[in-house]
Amino acid sequence: MNPGRPVMPGADKLRRPLAQETTRLAEEAESARGADTVRAYGATSAESGLVPLTITRREPKPDDVEIEVEFCGLCHSDVHATRGEWGPRPWPLVPGHEIVGRVRRVGAEVRRFAVGDRVGVGCMVDSCRECAHCRAGLEQFCERGTVGTYGVPDPRNGGEVTQGGYSQRIVVNEGYVLRIPDSLDPAAAAPILCAGITTYSPLRRFGVGPGTRVGVLGLGGLGHMAVKLAAAMGAEVTVFTRTPSKADDAARLGAHRVVVTSDAAQLEAAAGTLDVVLDTVSAPHDPNASLRTLRLDGALVALSLPSGDMPPVRPGALIRRRLTYTGSLIGGIAQTQEVLDFCAERGVAPEIEMVRAADLNEAFDRIVASDVKYRFVLDAASLADAGQETGES
Amino acid sequence: MNPGRPVMPGADKLRRPLAQETTRLAEEAESARGADTVRAYGATSAESGLVPLTITRREPKPDDVEIEVEFCGLCHSDVHATRGEWGPRPWPLVPGHEIVGRVRRVGAEVRRFAVGDRVGVGCMVDSCRECAHCRAGLEQFCERGTVGTYGVPDPRNGGEVTQGGYSQRIVVNEGYVLRIPDSLDPAAAAPILCAGITTYSPLRRFGVGPGTRVGVLGLGGLGHMAVKLAAAMGAEVTVFTRTPSKADDAARLGAHRVVVTSDAAQLEAAAGTLDVVLDTVSAPHDPNASLRTLRLDGALVALSLPSGDMPPVRPGALIRRRLTYTGSLIGGIAQTQEVLDFCAERGVAPEIEMVRAADLNEAFDRIVASDVKYRFVLDAASLADAGQETGES
Repeated sequence: MNPGRPVMPGADKLRRPLAQETTRLAEEAESARGADTVRAYGATSAESGLVPLTITRREPKPDDVEIEVEFCGLCHSDVHATRGEWGPRPWPLVPGHEIVGRVRRVGAEVRRFAVGDRVGVGCMVDSCRECAHCRAGLEQFCERGTVGTYGVPDPRNGGEVTQGGYSQRIVVNEGYVLRIPDSLDPAAAAPILCAGITTYSPLRRFGVGPGTRVGVLGLGGLGHMAVKLAAAMGAEVTVFTRTPSKADDAARLGAHRVVVTSDAAQLEAAAGTLDVVLDTVSAPHDPNASLRTLRLDGALVALSLPSGDMPPVRPGALIRRRLTYTGSLIGGIAQTQEVLDFCAERGVAPEIEMVRAADLNEAFDRIVASDVKYRFVLDAASLADAGQETGES
Repeated sequence: MNPGRPVMPGADKLRRPLAQETTRLAEEAESARGADTVRAYGATSAESGLVPLTITRREPKPDDVEIEVEFCGLCHSDVHATRGEWGPRPWPLVPGHEIVGRVRRVGAEVRRFAVGDRVGVGCMVDSCRECAHCRAGLEQFCERGTVGTYGVPDPRNGGEVTQGGYSQRIVVNEGYVLRIPDSLDPAAAAPILCAGITTYSPLRRFGVGPGTRVGVLGLGGLGHMAVKLAAAMGAEVTVFTRTPSKADDAARLGAHRVVVTSDAAQLEAAAGTLDVVLDTVSAPHDPNASLRTLRLDGALVALSLPSGDMPPVRPGALIRRRLTYTGSLIGGIAQTQEVLDFCAERGVAPEIEMVRAADLNEAFDRIVASDVKYRFVLDAASLADAGQETGES
């Protein structure tokens, strides 16, 4: 999930000149300021695919944490962004916002983290910290614009465009760094930082627990975490999928019922049975079909931006059962720590497939084809090898 | 507002034969059971318009209240129903679900009402009283189907089709009768029973009070009550209207701001400012324009069934500000009493224009043309004259 375009004052002015700078010029300027050069994978245009790059990381400021990246999850939004499908971006663009690693250095004022700690970074690396939403722990809705982990100008760092976790190191203000509990497998923990919090937040908002009937539409990166988290909260979980072959997997992940959406009789039997449905499907589809599965006061929660127009919602359905159609966007920093702790405590872990840097483009194609169970995670150690193999950077 | 078609077991079987009976046969049968004959106005077909009729009312059962109707509000749904615009109906059909009158007789077991009490009846005259929704005071969502005040078979009364308040008398189970506080003008109290509760219920659901910013889309029967009620709750009220000439009226009703929706600059200035928007417009319109006016966690509440498809909702808007698009359907019996008491206590009254029975068809045309400020109320005393004038019945 992408927290959207920044709207911080001056952000527009900053983006254009930066996008026109070449990587080489940026490197020289950074180098003059004592910044650190690291290997990364990113796109140099909407058509380039991912290629080995060298990027710079700033010298940690007093409240910064420098992280040696170990793992980074691959989110579908990484594909959209690097392929220019969500509008123009500054190039080069290093994606990745499900980052897990070890603290390498800390600034003098950092109190919450020490060298060697295992930490994480999700979809945000900064926000204004002053608006009502930031103060309420809803940094993802910062009124002046959240600073996304990649591809947006960072006002507190000279407007430099942020670069994500497909890289060897990252430097982040400690307020936006999460603690990875020791009991979590660090590679599997990475997707909790986006897929996990994106599904956890609405489950908490709607008070999901024992007795709640939760539906999950789509069984991909987000969907499989929705099933695991809702089941861990004690809910009765129904998975809606177009693919009958996913039924066994859904049961293994914790689902109590699977509805194949192409089967009208199965859909009809599910009508009016659910309290909350999390919709993780990004292909355009009919929200009225999901609304039909809800009971009085039920809620349909959109988590994915559809790639085209959806059919119109019929207000009659909203009126006659007082239904809610809503959306949800990742979660705040405190709630992101909460889902990490929840997963550690309940033994919930994303199902992952490890990928090496050299195979990232193939992995992106497989994400588009929904051919992954259920989340790719980049082994950041492979970034060094990949750079050498291609001879680029 | 119409609580929808009944789904009580057997309802379908009951409707067809009854619709085929003639008024005369029904009268004879009722008369044989000792029922009471009263004058009314109703439709005998989708094309008939409203004509004088004689209908029968059952002898009060032990838990029934017989009411001498004094006033009945004219709701836009009365027009839709009698013109067959919401699907086929049993004929004849006497509309009216904003009924105020005096208790004329009570059954032996009635404890809450006595002869002479001023009482009201809204959109429901019965429900199953046993399902979870009925037990929770949400009779309008009865799982076995609410018995609407007119046009639906009434299972506890032999499947007889209910007939509404455009009539001299009505007999209703005491559990569905409301008390009209003495301080309310009885004619003006009538629209509280539908327009009032329909707008009050969502304002309460979303905790509207001092500091809340409420938007009201459309300034008709529902809209003007939404403005008055929200203002009485202490909210800051913005009215959205296509008609610039309504600005003065909106202010008089209690609105703090008026946005003319055809003025793009005014709409833009309202973006992101509101907590709750009540949408009372039944002509198809773009819900995305209303969603744009909402702040983080804001809610758009549909109260009117649109007469055609609306443009698709863009889930991105729901996601990026965690907005809610929902609906609301009148309110339960206890909450309907609550809004009557609230109006009495705060001096809130619908703005009405009295209409005589002989002028009902003209009034319906003016409702369709939005030419009423803001609710017509039938003077039920005129039913006697009207019947005599035409010589019909």
